Amino acid sequence: MGASEYVPVFHTVDVIRAKRDGQRLSDDQIDWLIAAYTDGRVAEEQMAAMAMAVFLNGLDADELNRWTAAMIASGTRLDFSGLSRPTADKHSTGGVGDKITLPLAPLVAACGVAVPQLSGRGLGHTGGTLDKLESIPGWRANLDTGEVLAQLEDVGAVICAAGADLAPADKKLYALRDITSTVESIPLIASSIMSKKIAEGTGALVLDVKVGSGAFMKNRKDAATLAQTMVGLGTAAGVRTTALLTDMETPLGLTAGNAIEVAESIEVLAGGGPADVVELTLALAREMVAGAGVDADPAEALASGRAMDVWRRMIAAQGGDPDAPLPQAHHTEQVTASNDGVLTRLDAYAVGIAAWRLGAGRARKEDTVQAAAGVTWHKRPGDPVRTGETLFSLHTDTPERFASAIAALDGGYEIGQEATTPGSIVLDRITAG
Amino acid sequence: MGASEYVPVFHTVDVIRAKRDGQRLSDDQIDWLIAAYTDGRVAEEQMAAMAMAVFLNGLDADELNRWTAAMIASGTRLDFSGLSRPTADKHSTGGVGDKITLPLAPLVAACGVAVPQLSGRGLGHTGGTLDKLESIPGWRANLDTGEVLAQLEDVGAVICAAGADLAPADKKLYALRDITSTVESIPLIASSIMSKKIAEGTGALVLDVKVGSGAFMKNRKDAATLAQTMVGLGTAAGVRTTALLTDMETPLGLTAGNAIEVAESIEVLAGGGPADVVELTLALAREMVAGAGVDADPAEALASGRAMDVWRRMIAAQGGDPDAPLPQAHHTEQVTASNDGVLTRLDAYAVGIAAWRLGAGRARKEDTVQAAAGVTWHKRPGDPVRTGETLFSLHTDTPERFASAIAALDGGYEIGQEATTPGSIVLDRITAG
Repeated sequence: MGASEYVPVFHTVDVIRAKRDGQRLSDDQIDWLIAAYTDGRVAEEQMAAMAMAVFLNGLDADELNRWTAAMIASGTRLDFSGLSRPTADKHSTGGVGDKITLPLAPLVAACGVAVPQLSGRGLGHTGGTLDKLESIPGWRANLDTGEVLAQLEDVGAVICAAGADLAPADKKLYALRDITSTVESIPLIASSIMSKKIAEGTGALVLDVKVGSGAFMKNRKDAATLAQTMVGLGTAAGVRTTALLTDMETPLGLTAGNAIEVAESIEVLAGGGPADVVELTLALAREMVAGAGVDADPAEALASGRAMDVWRRMIAAQGGDPDAPLPQAHHTEQVTASNDGVLTRLDAYAVGIAAWRLGAGRARKEDTVQAAAGVTWHKRPGDPVRTGETLFSLHTDTPERFASAIAALDGGYEIGQEATTPGSIVLDRITAG
Repeated sequence: MGASEYVPVFHTVDVIRAKRDGQRLSDDQIDWLIAAYTDGRVAEEQMAAMAMAVFLNGLDADELNRWTAAMIASGTRLDFSGLSRPTADKHSTGGVGDKITLPLAPLVAACGVAVPQLSGRGLGHTGGTLDKLESIPGWRANLDTGEVLAQLEDVGAVICAAGADLAPADKKLYALRDITSTVESIPLIASSIMSKKIAEGTGALVLDVKVGSGAFMKNRKDAATLAQTMVGLGTAAGVRTTALLTDMETPLGLTAGNAIEVAESIEVLAGGGPADVVELTLALAREMVAGAGVDADPAEALASGRAMDVWRRMIAAQGGDPDAPLPQAHHTEQVTASNDGVLTRLDAYAVGIAAWRLGAGRARKEDTVQAAAGVTWHKRPGDPVRTGETLFSLHTDTPERFASAIAALDGGYEIGQEATTPGSIVLDRITAG
């Protein structure tokens, strides 16, 4: 892929027409299209028409493998083969309160696996890992490749910003899809995620595919198809890939924001924290450790405090002070229960929108986020509730945002009389073949 | 359409998504989309995605009427109601050797109907009416609205360039469709043609919908659907509209080029010319005269020489010298028959490509055309042929073009032994309701 000397040249309109008319694109057509789009020979409006044709007519498995490979070939591919340890990475399709990367990366590193976690920033109602870590005083997201390699060898885990040279075709296409209503396409989502993850050069990968109101995939069938598609792409590229389908009807843990999610992650590393966050962290860690071929028990690494040790070294290595107090919001309001009963529903999407409106997230890429903004919920589904008890604490530095955040929560939870037992957060496990 | 005071504002991505997901667009959505695209609030890449969604998911009759109305409303609409005569216009979907507008406009004017024929230039293998007329020394295509009205009142016929303020949304969209493989869509073709024709303000309209190898529509079913769609749009807008489905497997007449088609048109006006050109000119003239509600016989107006008189005044009114010799090509080559028999097939597309390659047409809008370049064919299907007889004369000012033109003709004709009788050029007539 991309290695042949002879590169055929196509007319853009012919390639668009082929997909428009439901034909398979050839390997050469796909290689040419992605390369020509990356360097501007295929115009944005042409790729927009192609993206819509792909949205409506699809890509088969062979086309999708090639499309993903071509996006990887549009940039550089990292190489961790010189490290003394095997590598494993995690990708989440994004959810509310999803701080799992923070405890997970040091935990897996504590098991003897190097974790190169190249991350992005949040957009819309789901938070971004880098935004959360940047609430730690001094911590910096941008490392060069040499720094990444050195930290992986020395500390074992690095969470940093993905470089601009990693799948640049995907960066262009992602921005284009956002404004042309061509986002929610399984082949386009799968190739976008997997081109970046494969280009990162990890040996093993676990995908946390969220399903529910707070996730991109609202139903389990679509989530399973996406997971299978991505596991297939990773496996075809030689990355040992598995996926967990996990629940995102309810937000993860008890916090959605930046600094407050860091605090919750530190609780988990200290042996406490919400049960669902601990459960999911351990489940993903087991997949990564197994995928890397290492015989180690993440639960033991967590209980022993070794994961916390890696966390502190990982934060310090990127200029952060693990002992510095985290930012506190200047303003806090409470939402209380209006009747007695049991919390029967807590909607992830509503909580995500509330946190976003308080300033934890951004509407446009250029926006900045508030480190201390967010939502803490004090009850989870199944918990008893009494009239007047605090259900939510809302945090922001800009109190004029409270009203719209409270409006977002309206209808986002229910207090009933029937006690329900929440199920496991892991709904399914998907492997290759 | 465009007349209401309240103009709702939409998010572009929501409008694209609706069509992507197979929903009907509302009148307000369509009005907003076309207006916002015209003034740049909807970006080219967004309209490209929309055009592909329309291509694949279609527009129903109500959506198409509104879409067409919105394109008309994007610019100015001419008003010929002050003229002393009724108006009628013709549109051809484009074919090879299609010079019909040239004899038709003066012929219909000679019947007492004003003919405002706002035309375009050629692109690809089909020629443009303005390109043909510009081979007449001194003739100019660009008139302002006052000049058009004065010439219609005085001469009765005008063939000139359509102004930039006529359906500007269509001008943008047409250029975009050309580079995004969203051309061959019946609703997009129909709304493009009809928005311009309705905006021109004609009272009656005949559509010459070509079908065959040299036409845009290769099969009769698609051509009939396009014709019905356009007749419906014209009728809904209050224009008396009919359509003729006409054969374009074989090129029209005996010439394809610019000056050589003008010469052939003058032969028709002088009472001679190829039988198929005369037949089609009269058939279309009868539709236009009837549509304008005038009781006149085009055959008589042609035979009497009155059509020729109008032609001469029409050319002179736009600065052309009707008596000036037409440009002659500097180089001519012949293609001769390699065996005896009967010409059984002459392929319009092959002839069109040959003429284009000789310099009669343009590949890009910016290209210039050669006035004298083109192809003359000396036999039509059904004619006997002897070995060594000239089949084609090729004309160009740039003789290095001969080889590729001759290559285009290779396989574009057949000499057999069975005499065939060509059928009528008019395949069907389509009217409203």
